[in-house]
Amino acid sequence: MRFASFFTSAFQRHPSYSKLILLCTLSGGGLLSYSESQSITGTPASSTNSDVPAKKKVVVLGTGWGGTSFLKDLDASLYDVQVVSPCNYFAFTPLLPSVTCGTVEARSIVEPVRNMVKKRKGEIKFWEAECLKIDHANKTVFCRSNIDSNLVGSGEFSLEYDYLVVAIGAQVNTFNTPGVKEHCYFLKEVEDAQKIRRAVIDCFEKAVLPSLTDEERRTNLHFVVVGGGPTGVEFAAELHDHFQEDLVNLYSSVKDFVKITVIQSGDHILNTFDERISLFAEDKFGRDGIEVQTGCRVVSVDDKNITMKTKSTGEISSVPHGMVIWSTGIATRPVVRDFMEQIGQGKRRVLATNEWLRVKGCDSVYAIGDCSSIDQRKIMDDISAIFEAADKDKSGTLTVAELKDVIDDIVVRYPQFDLYLKSKHILDLSTLWKDSEGNYREEIDIEGFKMALSHMDSQMKTLPATAQVASQQGEYLARCFNRMHQCEEHPEGPRRFKGSGRHTFLPFRYKHFGQFAPLGGEQAAAELPGDWVSMGHSTQWLWYSVYASKQVSWRTRMLVVSDWTRRFIFGRDSSRI
Amino acid sequence: MRFASFFTSAFQRHPSYSKLILLCTLSGGGLLSYSESQSITGTPASSTNSDVPAKKKVVVLGTGWGGTSFLKDLDASLYDVQVVSPCNYFAFTPLLPSVTCGTVEARSIVEPVRNMVKKRKGEIKFWEAECLKIDHANKTVFCRSNIDSNLVGSGEFSLEYDYLVVAIGAQVNTFNTPGVKEHCYFLKEVEDAQKIRRAVIDCFEKAVLPSLTDEERRTNLHFVVVGGGPTGVEFAAELHDHFQEDLVNLYSSVKDFVKITVIQSGDHILNTFDERISLFAEDKFGRDGIEVQTGCRVVSVDDKNITMKTKSTGEISSVPHGMVIWSTGIATRPVVRDFMEQIGQGKRRVLATNEWLRVKGCDSVYAIGDCSSIDQRKIMDDISAIFEAADKDKSGTLTVAELKDVIDDIVVRYPQFDLYLKSKHILDLSTLWKDSEGNYREEIDIEGFKMALSHMDSQMKTLPATAQVASQQGEYLARCFNRMHQCEEHPEGPRRFKGSGRHTFLPFRYKHFGQFAPLGGEQAAAELPGDWVSMGHSTQWLWYSVYASKQVSWRTRMLVVSDWTRRFIFGRDSSRI
Repeated sequence: MRFASFFTSAFQRHPSYSKLILLCTLSGGGLLSYSESQSITGTPASSTNSDVPAKKKVVVLGTGWGGTSFLKDLDASLYDVQVVSPCNYFAFTPLLPSVTCGTVEARSIVEPVRNMVKKRKGEIKFWEAECLKIDHANKTVFCRSNIDSNLVGSGEFSLEYDYLVVAIGAQVNTFNTPGVKEHCYFLKEVEDAQKIRRAVIDCFEKAVLPSLTDEERRTNLHFVVVGGGPTGVEFAAELHDHFQEDLVNLYSSVKDFVKITVIQSGDHILNTFDERISLFAEDKFGRDGIEVQTGCRVVSVDDKNITMKTKSTGEISSVPHGMVIWSTGIATRPVVRDFMEQIGQGKRRVLATNEWLRVKGCDSVYAIGDCSSIDQRKIMDDISAIFEAADKDKSGTLTVAELKDVIDDIVVRYPQFDLYLKSKHILDLSTLWKDSEGNYREEIDIEGFKMALSHMDSQMKTLPATAQVASQQGEYLARCFNRMHQCEEHPEGPRRFKGSGRHTFLPFRYKHFGQFAPLGGEQAAAELPGDWVSMGHSTQWLWYSVYASKQVSWRTRMLVVSDWTRRFIFGRDSSRI
Repeated sequence: MRFASFFTSAFQRHPSYSKLILLCTLSGGGLLSYSESQSITGTPASSTNSDVPAKKKVVVLGTGWGGTSFLKDLDASLYDVQVVSPCNYFAFTPLLPSVTCGTVEARSIVEPVRNMVKKRKGEIKFWEAECLKIDHANKTVFCRSNIDSNLVGSGEFSLEYDYLVVAIGAQVNTFNTPGVKEHCYFLKEVEDAQKIRRAVIDCFEKAVLPSLTDEERRTNLHFVVVGGGPTGVEFAAELHDHFQEDLVNLYSSVKDFVKITVIQSGDHILNTFDERISLFAEDKFGRDGIEVQTGCRVVSVDDKNITMKTKSTGEISSVPHGMVIWSTGIATRPVVRDFMEQIGQGKRRVLATNEWLRVKGCDSVYAIGDCSSIDQRKIMDDISAIFEAADKDKSGTLTVAELKDVIDDIVVRYPQFDLYLKSKHILDLSTLWKDSEGNYREEIDIEGFKMALSHMDSQMKTLPATAQVASQQGEYLARCFNRMHQCEEHPEGPRRFKGSGRHTFLPFRYKHFGQFAPLGGEQAAAELPGDWVSMGHSTQWLWYSVYASKQVSWRTRMLVVSDWTRRFIFGRDSSRI
C-alpha cells in the first residue's frame, strides 16, 4: 500500500504520468482502479481492468452531518468512494437560526465538500446531484444534477455500488396542513435561512412605507413561529434580539407594532428538555414580550391569516400574520420512501436499520442520520436463545453465575438490559432471581427468566433526529468500513445468541453530550451529561465555546468567531441582499 | 435650533412626548414639521400646519454613489428629506468584480442606507421602493415598493417635492443585441455578482459530472466576457485567479478544459486607459492564457452559442459557451427617459444638466451620477457677451489687459478655456492676440476674438460614468443645498456674461484622482493624477490601500480587509449558496 500511495501522490502532481503508472503497476492491486478513477472522464469505476481485483465501490448519498462525518473518518484508500449530494457543501446546521438574522453569515457555516475530501487519504469523487432512485435489485442509484441553467450535457447518470450509505436526511413535515407549503418559511437548509433573513427585512421595509395604515403595519410585523422545539425557540429568540438590538433604531416609527408569537401544540415549549429549562424559557419569553401559545394546533395557513385550534376548548381562531416560520418536525424524503417500498419497509414511518446501522433487509445498504432509525432488537424476541446460551450445563435452569458468564455479551447486544438495571438501581444481578414474594432463588427456569427480563424492552429509546446522533453514526460507520477486512477475520462484536459465532462489529452506541437552547439576550439553557441543567449568561458563553470548537474547519471557526465579534461591535446588517 | 434639537432628541427617546412637544413649540419653526415627519404614519410632510413655514421638501431618488454622497454631506436639519431607492443599502460597486469570485463577500461591500442616515444631523426618511414616474408638472414622484411577498397594504405612494435629486443611475446597455437579456449575466448590481458566483460554480459542478463528454465539459467551461472595459477585464482577471488558486485543486479532472475569452469591439482592451496600460494588460492576459479577441462585435447570443462579427473581415463566427458576462456600457433607465420626454429632452441620449447639476429646463430638479451628463456651455455661444463684458471702454476692440480683468470669471464659467491654454502650452494670454502670421497685435476686434477662442470648445469633455464622478457630484450638490440661503444672498459663482450679476454657486468641477485596473495574480495597473502610470505588484498593494480607505464605514472597511485576509489564508469559498 505504501508503494501505491507513493505513486498516487506522484500521479496527483503529474497527471501526465498516468499511463506510465498504469503500465508499471499492473500488479499494484488497488492502484489501477484508483488511477482510472482519477481519469478525466470520471466514469464510474466499473470499467476497471478485470484482471485486477477492483476496490469495492462505496456510494454515499448526502453531505450533511452523517455523510460528512463518515467521509471525514473513512480511509478512502480502501474503497472507490463516490459521493452524491445536491449541495456541494456541508452546513453547520445548529447555527442556522443565527443565519436568519445575520448574527453569523451563511458562508461562515458552510464548508465545501471538495475542500474536506481533498484532505482525505485516497480519492473521493463528488457529484453535485440529487439521488432520484435507489434501485436495490441492481445495486444502482440514479442521479440527476439539479443545476437548472442552460449548460450542455445530460445531468442524469447512474452509479453502481457494492456498499451504499444513505445519509440523505429528512424533509420538513407539514403534516399536510393546507397552505403551509405555499405560505410558510422553513428552517432546514441554508437557503431557507437566507430567505427568512430577506423576508424579515421586507416586513419592516413594507411596514414603514407611507401608504400603509397602522393595522396593515401591525399585520406585516406579526411574526409567527409554529413549533416550540429548539429550532423554533432559538429563531424566535434571535428575531427578538435582532429587533431589540438593531432594527428598533432603524425602523423606530413602527417599533410598537412588532409582535412575535410561538405556537406549540404541546403544553410547554422545549418539551424534549428538562422541565426546569421549559419553564425558564417560557418565563424569559414572557418578560421579552414573545407570546407563547401552547396547546394550539395550526389547521391552515393562507397568505394573510394563520388559523389554529385550541386543543382544550376546540375553539378555532384566525390571526393575520406578516410571516410564518414552520418548524415542527421532519418527514421521510420521497426517494427514501420509494426505497422502503422496494425492501418491504413500506408500512414503516422511517427507514429501519439494525444496531450496526445496516438497513433491515439489505446486506449492502447502510443508513445514518435523520433518514433512518435504529430498530433495537428486543430481549424478549431472543429470550429462549439467551437462556439456552447461558445454560451451559443444559440443566434447564439458570444460576446467577451462569448469567454472569454471558452478561457482557447481553449488555452489548441489548443495551436496554443495562438501562433497566440502572433505572431500577439494581446493582446485583441476583435481585433478578427473586420471586414475586421477594424470596431469593438459586436457579430459575425459562419462565422465571422471561418474567425477570420482561420489562427491560420498555427501556428501548428512539434516538433523536439531531446532528449529534448523525455525526456519531457517521464516525461509527467509517470505523467499521476501515476495519471491515480485519473484523471479518477477527470479529469484535458480541456473541450471536441465535446462530453461532460473534457479530463482526460492536453495535453502534450513542453518547449524549447534552444539548443547548439559546434563548436570546445573551442567555442560554443547557442540558449537560449527568442530568445537569445550566441556564443564563454563563451558559451562553459555554454555547459560544462549544459551537466554535465544533466547527468542521479552521476556516469556518475563524469566520464564525469573527462574525460574533462583528455583531458585538457593529450589530447585525440590515441590507436586503 | 439648539432648543429644537434638545426636544428632538427627547422626542426620539420618548415618542409619547410627541403631542406635548407639538403643543409647546408652536413657535419652534422647523421643529413642528420635523416632529410630524417623525410620526408613525410616515405620511409625506405636506400635511404640516400651514401657520408654520414648512421646510422645503427634498426627494432623493437612488442610493448609489451620487445619492449616498449627497446624503452624507447634506445638512438634513435644513430640509424635509425623503429618499427612495429599490435597494435599502449602498453598495461599493468597484468591488463587485471581487464579489463574483468570493474574494470579498457581498455583505462586506454594502452598508444599509438607514445606518448611514441615522448618523446624520436631522432626520432623513427612507422608503425602499422604485420610482415609477417623475411628474414634473405637479412636482410629484410616483413610487412602488418592489417587495413581492404577500404582505398587506398598498406599496404605491407618491411624494411631493420642492427639490428633486435624481441619482438613479443607469442600466445595462444590451445595444438591442438579440438574446443578451435572456442568456447573459451582467455585473451592475450586488445580486448580479452573487448570481455570477453561483453560476461559475455551476459550470464546474456540471462539467465534472460522469455523464458528460469532453466536448460538453469544454463548452460548459468556456467563459466569455463581452466588453474589455475595466469591469470586464477585472472580472476576467478575478475568474482566472479563482480558477488558478482555488478551483484547479478542487476540480482537477477538468482543469484542461477551462477557457476564458474577452471580446472587445475596439482595437484594445482598457482603451479608456493610457496605451501602456492596455498593452501591459493584453500582454499579461496573453501569458495567463486569457484569450483577447479585439475588433469583434457580438451579434447574438443564445443558450448554447455566442455569435460575433470580426469588424475587419466581416466574418461571422459562432462559439459554444458555458457562460457569457455582458459588460459593455450603460443606458438610460425608462423612468429617466420618460422624464426627459416631459421636459423636452426626448431627443437626447442622456439627461442633460447645466454646470450646476440642475436639469436643463427644470428649476427644481437636479441630476447626478450615471443618469445624467453635464452640458458644458460653449464659449462660442457667449462670445459676443464675453467680448462686450471685457470691453470696458466700449472701444469695440479688446486689449490683453482688458481680457485679464475678466479672465477669472471666464475660466470658472468655461473650463475649456483653461484646458485649451494648457494643451497648447500657452503661458501668456498675449499669444492669443497674434494674427495668423504670428505678429503680435495691441487690440483685437470681435472677429479676431472669435478666431482666437474658436478652438477652445473642442476641449470640452464628457465626464466618465464612474463612482468618482457621481460621488463628487453628490458632495458638491450637498454643499450647494447646505448654503443655498446664504449663497442666494451672497452669490459666490462667476459673473453672468449674459444677464447681470453673478451665478449663485461656483459650477461643479471634477477632480480626477486616477483609476485602477486590477489584472489578477496580485498585479494591477493604475493611471494616477499627472499622467503617471503604475503597473505591477506594488500597484496592487496601492489598490488594496485605496479601496480599503474609501469604504463608507468602519464596518465595511473591517469586513473587506478581513475578507482579503481570509482569502490569503484559506482561499475562496466554492460552496454554491
